[in-house]
Amino acid sequence: LCGSIVYSMFTEPLQLEAASIAERDTLAKRESGINLTSPMRLRMESFIKALQQEIVVALETLDPSQRFRIDTWTRPNGGGGISCVLQGGKVFEKAGVNTSIVYGTLPRPAIAKMRVNHKALDPDVESIEFFAAGISCVLHPQNPNAPTVHFNYRYFETMDAQGNCNAWWFGGGTDLTPSYLFDEDAIHFHRTIKEACDKHDRDYYPRFKKWCDKYFYIPHRGESRGIGGIFFDDLDEEEKDQEQLFSFVKDCLTAFLPSYMPLIQKRKDMPFTEKEKEWQQLRRGRYVEFNLVHDRGTSFGLNTPGARVESILMSLPLTARWIYMHDADRGSREERLLNVLKEPVEWV
Amino acid sequence: LCGSIVYSMFTEPLQLEAASIAERDTLAKRESGINLTSPMRLRMESFIKALQQEIVVALETLDPSQRFRIDTWTRPNGGGGISCVLQGGKVFEKAGVNTSIVYGTLPRPAIAKMRVNHKALDPDVESIEFFAAGISCVLHPQNPNAPTVHFNYRYFETMDAQGNCNAWWFGGGTDLTPSYLFDEDAIHFHRTIKEACDKHDRDYYPRFKKWCDKYFYIPHRGESRGIGGIFFDDLDEEEKDQEQLFSFVKDCLTAFLPSYMPLIQKRKDMPFTEKEKEWQQLRRGRYVEFNLVHDRGTSFGLNTPGARVESILMSLPLTARWIYMHDADRGSREERLLNVLKEPVEWV
Repeated sequence: LCGSIVYSMFTEPLQLEAASIAERDTLAKRESGINLTSPMRLRMESFIKALQQEIVVALETLDPSQRFRIDTWTRPNGGGGISCVLQGGKVFEKAGVNTSIVYGTLPRPAIAKMRVNHKALDPDVESIEFFAAGISCVLHPQNPNAPTVHFNYRYFETMDAQGNCNAWWFGGGTDLTPSYLFDEDAIHFHRTIKEACDKHDRDYYPRFKKWCDKYFYIPHRGESRGIGGIFFDDLDEEEKDQEQLFSFVKDCLTAFLPSYMPLIQKRKDMPFTEKEKEWQQLRRGRYVEFNLVHDRGTSFGLNTPGARVESILMSLPLTARWIYMHDADRGSREERLLNVLKEPVEWV
Repeated sequence: LCGSIVYSMFTEPLQLEAASIAERDTLAKRESGINLTSPMRLRMESFIKALQQEIVVALETLDPSQRFRIDTWTRPNGGGGISCVLQGGKVFEKAGVNTSIVYGTLPRPAIAKMRVNHKALDPDVESIEFFAAGISCVLHPQNPNAPTVHFNYRYFETMDAQGNCNAWWFGGGTDLTPSYLFDEDAIHFHRTIKEACDKHDRDYYPRFKKWCDKYFYIPHRGESRGIGGIFFDDLDEEEKDQEQLFSFVKDCLTAFLPSYMPLIQKRKDMPFTEKEKEWQQLRRGRYVEFNLVHDRGTSFGLNTPGARVESILMSLPLTARWIYMHDADRGSREERLLNVLKEPVEWV
C-alpha cells in the first residue's frame, strides 16, 4: 500500500504540480486531520467551524420553535462558506452566524496596500496566493430591551506556490449595540471581554477598546454605533508569535457566549411599548448607516467579485426606520443612550 | 439722499472690500430683485425656490389633512437651505423637497478633480470661490402600488473674488422606483420627461436615459434601483450656452409634477395586501442600499463638514426591510419587476 502511494506520487508529477493549495489542503485534512502541527490556516478553519456550530446550538435553545437555516457554498478556486441565519423568530428578529474560507490571488496593488502594515510581503512579485478564514455573527433581538451584538474574527495569510506561509495576521472584534442602556449589561459584556484579553496581555483590553470606539464611530451622526467592545487588526509577529495570537483569538471567540447569553436571557421577555419598539427601529436605521457607509468589512465584501452578497448583508436588521428630525425627550432613556453614544464610557 | 449713499460708499471702502460674494448677492437681490440680467446663480436660486413652493402646495392637495414641516437654516459663510418634509401621511410615508444654496471655497485638490470635466478652471490657484444651488425631492408613498420618485437638479459655478462667474455647469436627473410595475405608469413618466428633453435636443433623452440607467445601478445586487428616467452632469458651454441649458433644466423641473401627479393620483387608494406591503419594504431596503453605498450625492453630502445630515438623509424611506434569501415567486408581479430591473427597458 505504502509503495503504491509512492508510485502514484512519482508517476503523476504533472497532476501534483497542478494541484492548487486549496486542493492540497483538502487532501491534508482528509488524510491526517487537524492537529497542533497542521498549518495555522487549517487550525483556524477547524476552530471557527466548530464554534459556529456551538453558537448556533446555544442560540436555538433560546427559542426551540425556531431553527437556523443553513446554507453552504463553495468558491470555484477553493474555499467556501457556511451561513446560518434565523429570521422572524420569537427571540431574534434576525440572527446570522457565518464562516467563510477564501483561497485567492492578490494582485500587485493589493499587495502594495497591505505592505503598509506587513513588511514581510514581497513588493516585487506580480501576484501572491492568499488564504482568509473568518467567522462573523450579528444578532438583532426582537425585544428593544435586548441589545444587538456583533463579532467578527479572521485570520489572513499569504503563501508561496507550495503553500508555505509567508505573511500572516489576525484581526477581529466584538461590540454591543443596545437600544436601551442597562449599565449592568454593558459592564458584564465589557468585563467578560476584558477577562479574555487580560489572560494574554494587560494592555490588550484598553488598547482594543479604544480602537473599537474609534472604528464603530459614525462621523456624520457624531455618535458611536453602540457601546463598544474590542477591535483589532493586523496583529502579526511584530505583536506576538502566531501561537500566542491564535490562543488570544480563540479566547475572545470562546468568551462570546458568556458575554452575551446572560443579557439576552434577562431581556428577551421584558414587556415593552410600541414607542420603545419604534425607537429600536430608529437605532436599527443607524446600524444600517454604519454598515453601509462606514464598515470596511462590508464595503470590502460588496466590492469583491463573486462574493456572496446575501451573507455579507445578513448583518442588516430585518426592519429599520428613519424619522426626519427625531428628538429624544429630555431626561428620557432614549436621551441617556444618545449621551453615552456621544461620549464613550469606561465600563470596567 | 443719493449723495449720502455715494458718501457712505466712498468713506467705507474697507467694509465694501470685505463684503463676501454672498453678502453682495444678498444686497443685489434686495436692491434690484431678480431679472434676466441677474447672474445665473441668482436666477437659478430664485427659480428653484419658487418651484419648491409650487411642488409642496401640489403635494399637499393629495392629503389636505397633512402639512409639510418646513425648516430653514443658514450657513455661516453664506447661503442656506429650506427643507420641506412630510412623514407618516395618508398618501406619503415620507416626502421631502429640499433646496440648498452654498457659498464656499474649493481647496486645490477639489479644483484638480473638477478640472477633469471643466478645463476653464485655473489649476494654478490655491483656492477658488464657488456657488452651488440645488433642489432635490424624494417621495415614498404608502401604497405599494404607487412608485417612489426622485429628482435633483443643480447649478454650480466658480467665481473670482469680485463674484464674476468663471466656470459653471448644470447637473440633475429624475427617476422612478416602483415596487410593482405598471407599464402605463412607466411609459407616462418617461414620455413626459422625453417631451421636456426633445424641446431642447433630440439626443438628450436617449443620452440621459442611458446615463440614468448606468448611474442608478446597484452592482452588488446586479439590478437597477428602479426603472430609470434621465441623469446628466457637468453640462457646460461645451454642451450648449448657459441660457439654453438653464432653459432645459427649467423645463425638466417643470415636467416633474405632470410626470408624477397622475401616477400617485391613480395608485394612492388602490387596495393592497400585507404581503405587497412587505415587498415594498424590501424594495425600500434596496433604495437604502443604493443611497448609502453608491449615490455620489449622498456620500458627498455626508462628507461635507457642516452639512445638514437630516436634509441629506431625508431621502431614506421611513421604513425598510431586509429578508435573507428572499425569492420572488415564479410568474409573480414581484418577479416581473426584478426582470425589468436586471435589463432596462426602452419605455418610449
